[in-house]
Amino acid sequence: MSSKWPENLGEAMIIKEKLLMGPGPSNCPPTVLKAAANPLLGHLHPDFCVIMDDVKAGIKHLFQTENELTIALCASGHAAMEATLVNVLEAGEKVVIARNGIWGDRAADIASRAGILVAMMNGNPGKSFSTEDIEEFLAKEKPKAFFITHGESSTGVLQNLKGIGSICRKYNCLFLVDSVAACGGVELKMDEWGIDVLYSGSQKVLSAPPGTAPISFSAQAREAIKNRKTAVQSYYLDVEILGRYWNVDNQPRFYHHTGAVTNIIALREALSFISSKTLEQSWKRHKNCQKKLHEGLKELGLELFVENEDDRLPCVTTIKVPGGVEWAKVTGLMMQNDTIEMAGGLGPTAGKCWRIGLMGYNCTEANVEKVLWSLKKALESVGYLSQIETF
Amino acid sequence: MSSKWPENLGEAMIIKEKLLMGPGPSNCPPTVLKAAANPLLGHLHPDFCVIMDDVKAGIKHLFQTENELTIALCASGHAAMEATLVNVLEAGEKVVIARNGIWGDRAADIASRAGILVAMMNGNPGKSFSTEDIEEFLAKEKPKAFFITHGESSTGVLQNLKGIGSICRKYNCLFLVDSVAACGGVELKMDEWGIDVLYSGSQKVLSAPPGTAPISFSAQAREAIKNRKTAVQSYYLDVEILGRYWNVDNQPRFYHHTGAVTNIIALREALSFISSKTLEQSWKRHKNCQKKLHEGLKELGLELFVENEDDRLPCVTTIKVPGGVEWAKVTGLMMQNDTIEMAGGLGPTAGKCWRIGLMGYNCTEANVEKVLWSLKKALESVGYLSQIETF
Repeated sequence: MSSKWPENLGEAMIIKEKLLMGPGPSNCPPTVLKAAANPLLGHLHPDFCVIMDDVKAGIKHLFQTENELTIALCASGHAAMEATLVNVLEAGEKVVIARNGIWGDRAADIASRAGILVAMMNGNPGKSFSTEDIEEFLAKEKPKAFFITHGESSTGVLQNLKGIGSICRKYNCLFLVDSVAACGGVELKMDEWGIDVLYSGSQKVLSAPPGTAPISFSAQAREAIKNRKTAVQSYYLDVEILGRYWNVDNQPRFYHHTGAVTNIIALREALSFISSKTLEQSWKRHKNCQKKLHEGLKELGLELFVENEDDRLPCVTTIKVPGGVEWAKVTGLMMQNDTIEMAGGLGPTAGKCWRIGLMGYNCTEANVEKVLWSLKKALESVGYLSQIETF
Repeated sequence: MSSKWPENLGEAMIIKEKLLMGPGPSNCPPTVLKAAANPLLGHLHPDFCVIMDDVKAGIKHLFQTENELTIALCASGHAAMEATLVNVLEAGEKVVIARNGIWGDRAADIASRAGILVAMMNGNPGKSFSTEDIEEFLAKEKPKAFFITHGESSTGVLQNLKGIGSICRKYNCLFLVDSVAACGGVELKMDEWGIDVLYSGSQKVLSAPPGTAPISFSAQAREAIKNRKTAVQSYYLDVEILGRYWNVDNQPRFYHHTGAVTNIIALREALSFISSKTLEQSWKRHKNCQKKLHEGLKELGLELFVENEDDRLPCVTTIKVPGGVEWAKVTGLMMQNDTIEMAGGLGPTAGKCWRIGLMGYNCTEANVEKVLWSLKKALESVGYLSQIETF
C-alpha cells in the first residue's frame, strides 16, 4: 500500500468549455453553473427547504400536473426509471413495455430484476407506436402498467402520448412515461393526458447538471403503492418515504437521505432559467430549431433515420451515416477542431447514425448554424462532400 | 392547470454562507465550490474519463485498498449502503447487523426489503462492540456477511475495526463496513483490516458536495457477486456493470448511466484538497481538534454521551442536553446569531443530545473555538450557564 496520494491529484484540472450538441448532458446557462458554486446548506436547513419547495412547484408546472407527490430524485434518469417500475409494481405483476429503442430494453432489464413480469411490445426502431396497436396489446395482455418512452433518444423518435391515457384507464392499467429526452422541449401534459408516473432528467432540456431526476406520481399510482403486499424493494427509491423528505402532503420532513444540495440548488436555478419563457414558447423554439437543423442536414445531402416527419423528436435528431464514412472520424474532427460534441448512435442506431441534440439552453438558431458549419467541414475533411458533388 | 410558472422561480436565490458544524454536510473548500461551477463535460468524454480515473485512484488511497472495483456512486451514502447489501447478498441469505444506532436500523430495513434475512446483533447506543461479542455472535449465526458502522453519527461512537476481519474470515463471512462519518478522519485500512465492502459519503470528511459515495469491493466480495443465483435486484446499483462505466478491470467503458459530472469534478477537487496532507496528518488533526472540543465542552459543564474515551468518534461528538434546556432553542440561537450549525440528536439521541461535527475542511482549531464561543453564548441566553454558576 503506497503511503502517498496519487500524484495526479496535485495537478490542477483545466476543463475547456465544449458545445455539447449530443443527446445530453447539454450545457448549463452560466447562472446555473454559478448557482452550483453556492455555499453548502444543511439538507434540512430551512433555507434549503424553501429551495426544495420551489423545485417541487417548478416541476409541477413543467409536467403540467397538480400531483402532490412531485419531487426530484438525487440520482440519474436511470434511477427514475427504476423508481417508477419498482414502486408501482411488485414481483409477479405484469408490465407491458413498448420497445422501439434502448429505453424499452433498459426498462425490461430493470423490471425483470425486480421479478416483475414483462410483456414486450416490440415496435420498429425509428417509428412510434399507434394508439390502435397499443390498445390491442393491452386488451390481450391485461397488465397492471404500461411503460412507454416519450422521446426515444437512441433513435430520435417522438411518441405521441395523446389518447394512450384513456386506453390505459379502459383496461385499468397505470400509464408510465419516460420523458427524459423530451420534457420541456415538446408538448407534455401529465394530468390532461392521464399519465400516472412521469419522470425526466436534469441534464437535458432543463440544462442543469446531471444527478437529479424530476418525477411525479398520480393519485392512482399512489393508490397502487398503498395497496402493495410487499415493501418497495429499494429504500433509496421508495418514493412515499422520499416524499416525506420533500414535505409531500405537508408531512413533517423526514431525514430520508442527504439530498444533493448543490444539484438541487442548480436545478432550482435551471427551473428559473426555463421559466423566463412560457412552456409553449419553449416547445415552439425546439420545433423551429429542429426545422432549421433538418433543412441544413438536407442541404448537406444527409438523410434522417426517422422517416415519418411527425415521429421526429425535436430534442434529438438521428442522421444516417453515409456509406463509406467513418462516423467516429467525423465526430472526432468536430470535437478536435471546433470543440463541438455530436454523438454517435446508441442501441439500434449504434454505428449507423449520428445524433444531434437541441435541448434547452443549447437550443438556439446560432447553435444549429454552428453544428452544421462544423459538420460540413468535417464531412469535407473525410472526403464525403466532394464525393457527392461529383454525382 | 396554471398557464404560468410559479412566481418564486423569478426571484433570485440568496444563500448566506453558514458554518456547518453538524454531522454533515460540512462546508466545502472554496476550490471545491469553484470546481462545481466548471463547464459541463459529456459523461463519457475523454477529459471526464481522466477525472474519473483520478477519483478512483484517490478513493483507493483514501480507503487504503488496491481493489480494482473502487468507484463513486452517483447517489448518497444511503444508496451506498443499499448497494453494499443488495450486491453481495441475495434473498434468503443471512446478514448479521451490528446495531447501536440508527445506521444498524437503516441497514436492516434495506436488507429486509431485499428479502435478505437479518440477524440483529443489538448493542448499546453510546458503546462500541467488542471483538469477543462479535465472534460469539458470528459463531452462532453463521451469516454470509457481517455489517457494522465505523462512525455511528447518530450516537458519536467510533467502532474499532481491527481484528474483526480475521474473525469474519474464520467464519467464512464477508465484512461490510459503513464509514460514511469516519473515513478520512480516523485510521482506516481496508485491505490490511480485511474489509470486503467499504463505503463513505462525499459530504463528510471529504468536504465535497453531497451526491456521490465512494465504495470499494474486495476480490472475495466480487466472487460472491459472481456466484449469485439471481441478478442484483437494482440496475442502478449493480456494481459490476457500474464498474464497467468506471473502466474497472480495463473493461471498455459502458454507458451505465449519465454520471453526475459536476459532482464527480467536485469530488476530484475535494480529493485534491485532502491530498495536500498525508492521511496520518488528517487523522491526527481530527484527534487534536476533538480533544480541544471535548475540553471546551467540559469547561462549559457539559457531559458527553459516549462514556468510554476510546469509543468517541472524532468526527461527531454527542453532547447530553442538560435538564431544563430546550435543545432546539440553543441550536436556533447559534444559527440565528452566528450562522453556525450545530445539530440535534438522531435515532437513540433524538431530543437528548446535540451533535457537533469536526470534518475535513471544517476540522480546524479555529472552528472548534467558534462553535464553543457560539454555544456558550447560546447557553447563557437560555439561562443555563448562570444556573450552573449558582451551584
